[in-house]
Amino acid sequence: MSNEQLDALREQLDEVNVKLLEQINERGRLVREIGDVKSKSGQKRFDPVRERHMLDHIAEHNEGPFYTSTVQHIFKQIFQAGLELQEDDNRKELLV
Amino acid sequence: MSNEQLDALREQLDEVNVKLLEQINERGRLVREIGDVKSKSGQKRFDPVRERHMLDHIAEHNEGPFYTSTVQHIFKQIFQAGLELQEDDNRKELLV
Repeated sequence: MSNEQLDALREQLDEVNVKLLEQINERGRLVREIGDVKSKSGQKRFDPVRERHMLDHIAEHNEGPFYTSTVQHIFKQIFQAGLELQEDDNRKELLV
Repeated sequence: MSNEQLDALREQLDEVNVKLLEQINERGRLVREIGDVKSKSGQKRFDPVRERHMLDHIAEHNEGPFYTSTVQHIFKQIFQAGLELQEDDNRKELLV
């Protein structure tokens, strides 16, 4: 019985993983677009004030079970990945 | 014009952040339930084979723009947070 329960929960976990993956990539596409708009108007890509604002927004919306510090740590990794994506785009632009 | 565009994109980004947050916490709830079932049947919480399976599943479903290695790195942080949540639960159980 507990194995069936475990299999069902794991199936749900795989579904959540795929949803997370899709949202992470959706975020990547948006960050790319933002980088593009900023680049055209000569603005810097990294904006620590905006990053702080996003972390605060996450804190306000966090209902757990994870601590806010834990989810903010994960989001910092996601922000970093987004920044690297913009830097890649920038490098490719410079090579054209 | 580009500032309006930027504001609209940032609004979309905030929405994606909240969706991500919700899925991360939904994942936390599932991981907790799994830890509970495993604990009752005397199974270890950390299962490297299952973790490998999840990372492979993520690789299969990744359509970019992020590289698979990048999303897998983010997921490893999410897995780690889940494990810490289960350990917290375990500690509380031992204290009861």
